[in-house]
Amino acid sequence: MAIKFAERMDNLKASEIRELLKLTERPEVISFAGGLPAPELFPVEEMKRVAVEVLEEGGQQALQYSATEGYAPLREKIVKRMSPIGISGKAENVLITNGSQQGLDFSGKIFINPGDVVVCESPSYLGAINAFKAYSPKFVEVTTDDSGMDMTELEKVLATTENVKMIYVIPDFQNPSGRTWSIDRRKKLVELANRFDLPIIEDNPYGELIFEGERMPSIKSFDTEGRVVFLGTFSKTFCPGLRVGWVYADEELIQKYILVKQGADLQSNSMVQRELNKFLELYDLDAHVEKIKDVYRRRRDIMLNTMKEYFPSEVKYTYPTGGLFTWVELPDHLNAREVFVKAIEVNVAFVPGGSFYPNGGNENTFRLNYSNMTEERIKEGIIRLGKLLTEMIKE
Amino acid sequence: MAIKFAERMDNLKASEIRELLKLTERPEVISFAGGLPAPELFPVEEMKRVAVEVLEEGGQQALQYSATEGYAPLREKIVKRMSPIGISGKAENVLITNGSQQGLDFSGKIFINPGDVVVCESPSYLGAINAFKAYSPKFVEVTTDDSGMDMTELEKVLATTENVKMIYVIPDFQNPSGRTWSIDRRKKLVELANRFDLPIIEDNPYGELIFEGERMPSIKSFDTEGRVVFLGTFSKTFCPGLRVGWVYADEELIQKYILVKQGADLQSNSMVQRELNKFLELYDLDAHVEKIKDVYRRRRDIMLNTMKEYFPSEVKYTYPTGGLFTWVELPDHLNAREVFVKAIEVNVAFVPGGSFYPNGGNENTFRLNYSNMTEERIKEGIIRLGKLLTEMIKE
Repeated sequence: MAIKFAERMDNLKASEIRELLKLTERPEVISFAGGLPAPELFPVEEMKRVAVEVLEEGGQQALQYSATEGYAPLREKIVKRMSPIGISGKAENVLITNGSQQGLDFSGKIFINPGDVVVCESPSYLGAINAFKAYSPKFVEVTTDDSGMDMTELEKVLATTENVKMIYVIPDFQNPSGRTWSIDRRKKLVELANRFDLPIIEDNPYGELIFEGERMPSIKSFDTEGRVVFLGTFSKTFCPGLRVGWVYADEELIQKYILVKQGADLQSNSMVQRELNKFLELYDLDAHVEKIKDVYRRRRDIMLNTMKEYFPSEVKYTYPTGGLFTWVELPDHLNAREVFVKAIEVNVAFVPGGSFYPNGGNENTFRLNYSNMTEERIKEGIIRLGKLLTEMIKE
Repeated sequence: MAIKFAERMDNLKASEIRELLKLTERPEVISFAGGLPAPELFPVEEMKRVAVEVLEEGGQQALQYSATEGYAPLREKIVKRMSPIGISGKAENVLITNGSQQGLDFSGKIFINPGDVVVCESPSYLGAINAFKAYSPKFVEVTTDDSGMDMTELEKVLATTENVKMIYVIPDFQNPSGRTWSIDRRKKLVELANRFDLPIIEDNPYGELIFEGERMPSIKSFDTEGRVVFLGTFSKTFCPGLRVGWVYADEELIQKYILVKQGADLQSNSMVQRELNKFLELYDLDAHVEKIKDVYRRRRDIMLNTMKEYFPSEVKYTYPTGGLFTWVELPDHLNAREVFVKAIEVNVAFVPGGSFYPNGGNENTFRLNYSNMTEERIKEGIIRLGKLLTEMIKE
């Protein structure tokens, strides 16, 4: 049998993170690999109550087909939840998706012809890179520092690159780097997108998990021409297993996303949308997010403090002020995939960083997650990793 | 602003069915338009029980990220449920999707380059046509009668058409026609697919809803070379709002679908998969399906009997032995879209048939659904429609 696949299938390979997660499932492994929320914080009891109430109040509607756009009361509440970051729109501008990953896939479908260019941060989110690859783009990575993407370099890229179709960014506590963009860079990005007439995909799964200071205004809040598509999700503030995310965009663009959703899977789960809506009615999600932040802040602290104490001075890393990740840069001669193999031998796991660069290279980097392990295990895991890195740097 | 979209977006327009459904939402409308199951049959009480038990027994896992492939115990039960139609595989061959619509989108993604040819029945399922259109194929429709696709014509098409990439069929109680393929045609289809080295997408959402006689063996059951992809769903046997469907395929093909699922939305809802699995453990889904069949059989009977009595003799229609639909053919000079406008004036709705032909034409057809209205309303709606058709034919 020699069935012919579409050419795009040549671009796709299994996500390294997913494959690594399988390796790290043994309970003795201290895993900094996945991007999993802390399950002990999931509101299990509250979910029981809302599940029963939703079925009692409107079980037939909850189990029936419903609108592609999503459940209207939930879409209204989502709009309100975005007001702290300067977004004030209508429920009609929200499409419910299966996590924000589906918004990434749809963005690729809507904007990318084979060979078109996606401009992204360097490094960028592996899941987005994989979603876009299904539409066969080229990637141009733009250097990113602690204040976000380098705007001088971006301007040069946009002025000299043909067939750029979209700019993809994660401005708050970026996955994988943990970095957050300054306000100036956010404004400048919109200015450049206006000048070069491009859409911006603003992916923001972590923004609410801020440990210090005030939330940054979204890039969308600076959008005067309806060209910024904002992707949000309840995966990190509530539960990822429910797969509820959203796309927020102005009329012309959101209509395209709705059309694509219709063909892709008709609609998201009717019942779960009502459950989440009921949760937002009965409980205080902001208070729940505060609990999550307290736990993650302490875990970040213990991870970063232990890194300071045990990591050799040649190793650099970011200081995240929110979100789930810190990003490590080893001396050039060290390969993080080799470190990974040795780390697994001492039951510690992380994700080698190379896969976060769509054009390859940068094999001396890796990502550490601090949201999914207890403080004790974080400390122990970082100590083991520090010892391993010290040995490897000496060699 | 003149943002450039991908070329594929030119192919997409809002689904006529979805738009029509909005028109038909007024409670006074007797709607034969959608493909909605009867909500009064949904197991609401049972869902309450399983929702609570799943959260009590493993709430944290139910709300956490989980495997892209789906929940293993549910995948095992799905394999067992396919044994009556001659499928006996392993849980590893099942991927859980958001309804079978997602399996259709993935099939397009996996097989279709722009300009490639999809061979389908004439008419075919509108939702599949729309899903595939996002990958810019050409469609070749093959004449279909009461025993399925015309195999002589199919052979000729395959022998004379370049770049055929897949054959898409709905062999059991087809949407929209209500027709079912004979065993001979099923075997012949596999034989031709083998000869021309093509994959077959066997879409089977209605097969379990059989009113008379024995279930047909699936096309997949005749597959000796691993080239048939079977799409199943719980939308019609359980509840569509939960969005649980599956893809069943041999190793090489299922791996492609899993890869595409990863990029598209990471995974389906963890909690709902466990709820459905729990339902299958605690309750008898087959007994539940029997109840659905009893209700739909009676509704089919009243619809078809009333059509016999009130439809003018120039109007032809199919006699479905299962599923949700019958298919109506008017004299050539009548346009079903014009009939629709007049029918809505007397508060009766259906779906004009033209959209079910990817290459257009056949505007003298329409689809009637009998699963979602009470017997009284079916009788009343068909009488009104019969009178309207009688008048229009006379004119």
